Amino acid sequence: MSNVTFIGLGVMGYPMAGHLAVKGGHTVTVYNRTAAKAEAWVKQYGGKSAATPADAARDADFVFTCVGNDDDLRSVTTAENGVFSGMKPGAILIDNTTASAEVARELDAAAKAKGCHFIDAPVSGGQAGAENGVLTVMCGGEAAVFEKAKPVIDAYARMVGLMGDVGAGQLTKMINQICIAGLVQGLAEGIHFGQKAGLDIEKVVEVISKGAAGSWQMENRHKTMMAGKYDFGFAVDWMRKDLDIVLSEARRNGATLPVTALVDQFYGEVQAMGGKRWDTSSLLARLEKK
Amino acid sequence: MSNVTFIGLGVMGYPMAGHLAVKGGHTVTVYNRTAAKAEAWVKQYGGKSAATPADAARDADFVFTCVGNDDDLRSVTTAENGVFSGMKPGAILIDNTTASAEVARELDAAAKAKGCHFIDAPVSGGQAGAENGVLTVMCGGEAAVFEKAKPVIDAYARMVGLMGDVGAGQLTKMINQICIAGLVQGLAEGIHFGQKAGLDIEKVVEVISKGAAGSWQMENRHKTMMAGKYDFGFAVDWMRKDLDIVLSEARRNGATLPVTALVDQFYGEVQAMGGKRWDTSSLLARLEKK
Repeated sequence: MSNVTFIGLGVMGYPMAGHLAVKGGHTVTVYNRTAAKAEAWVKQYGGKSAATPADAARDADFVFTCVGNDDDLRSVTTAENGVFSGMKPGAILIDNTTASAEVARELDAAAKAKGCHFIDAPVSGGQAGAENGVLTVMCGGEAAVFEKAKPVIDAYARMVGLMGDVGAGQLTKMINQICIAGLVQGLAEGIHFGQKAGLDIEKVVEVISKGAAGSWQMENRHKTMMAGKYDFGFAVDWMRKDLDIVLSEARRNGATLPVTALVDQFYGEVQAMGGKRWDTSSLLARLEKK
Repeated sequence: MSNVTFIGLGVMGYPMAGHLAVKGGHTVTVYNRTAAKAEAWVKQYGGKSAATPADAARDADFVFTCVGNDDDLRSVTTAENGVFSGMKPGAILIDNTTASAEVARELDAAAKAKGCHFIDAPVSGGQAGAENGVLTVMCGGEAAVFEKAKPVIDAYARMVGLMGDVGAGQLTKMINQICIAGLVQGLAEGIHFGQKAGLDIEKVVEVISKGAAGSWQMENRHKTMMAGKYDFGFAVDWMRKDLDIVLSEARRNGATLPVTALVDQFYGEVQAMGGKRWDTSSLLARLEKK
């Protein structure tokens, strides 16, 4: 059992930190920008909270971060009172934020300068995956560091993969979001067309979902899409943040992503429709409004 | 056992007619525009061939058509020497062509005028599905007619669904193609990005394919896409034919299909690259050429 620190108790981080304490059996110290969340967490799970990321990280063998974006990440790591001011040599920083590959390399360099280690480890599986401790974790970093981190990460994950060097976890998460963007828009167009044609969508999905058009999204989202129910799942605001990272990285590496870029614009229209917090499957609502 | 006629012995129809003879145990009469194919079929499976669709259909309880497009379909049905000149009252025409919902309604009216019945029954599952007799068949028509036709269709199918009135089979097939268009482009962009980023795509797919980005296409096509191998599967020419039908129908029913329309244009670029016969997953080759 280890001393573990968790920074960022949002809808994902709160239950993930919980699994590290309960299922992992670690001694967990938490930090959250809004202190009330940290106090609630300690009340629920034990452990303790700290006043700054640096204080939270002081005795830790493993430090987890799960915050909003690149800048939030810098503010709890390399900035004043960030975790790097507190971490002891040999400790490992594991970042669960969906962020850029660039910031991953930046934090890896900062970790090395302190005699520490870094793993970028964005997750997929959403809030339900975090609550049930069955996330998929896509890691980038050195194999020896990964081997030490994996048994700890296992507390909240069903699958933990080392994808390559530092940044490779973030790049893998980007591929995940690229595939989802085109796929969900295709599914939305299919359902939209079927509704206009007066078909029984439930029956259509039953017949086509096992074949070449089949997908996780078709199986798991068609009912809520048909019902116009989007108050759950992965919010459009977060998807746009992720697609912003994707499109910036593609600009750097020379990949051409025409449909991803277009769907990002469509999500902008969904935001304008009041759908900032709607699930990504709300692309159907946009087609219906046309 | 029944008298069955099969019109159109292409890569799909040839093995489908074979299953009707062997697995179904029916007496099968075939017709093909190029007579040599019909002779080869008779040599392989027995039964007999006829000089015209009308002659082929004369004693049949069930007449199957599986040809290229709406016009090919009219030429073997309502035109001179088409099946309707030969069919006896009460016989059922089952059309396996991927065609418009419009022509389905046209043939249904022509069938009724002759005291016959009509089912539109496009298939999915490709050449392999036809050869192994495990196609998915999406039917439109009257329930009582469908009940008579289903046991015969079963000879070459794993799933046979009645989707609604005449035309509903074609409309369901259209939804299938719409979903595939967006999905495959999304997958192609994901793999393209991953290759530019220097990732091990095999490992990426292993990690993300069970989650929200997962699809039949990801599972079954990523290896051939990575290998640049497209000399198999569902040809781009046929996909463009289907998307033409889709976009025409959408114009009629008022559905908005921006990504489907865009991907149709991309397939036009693949054709211009020499990819008319390439599998639909060759959208990746187009991105790589940019």
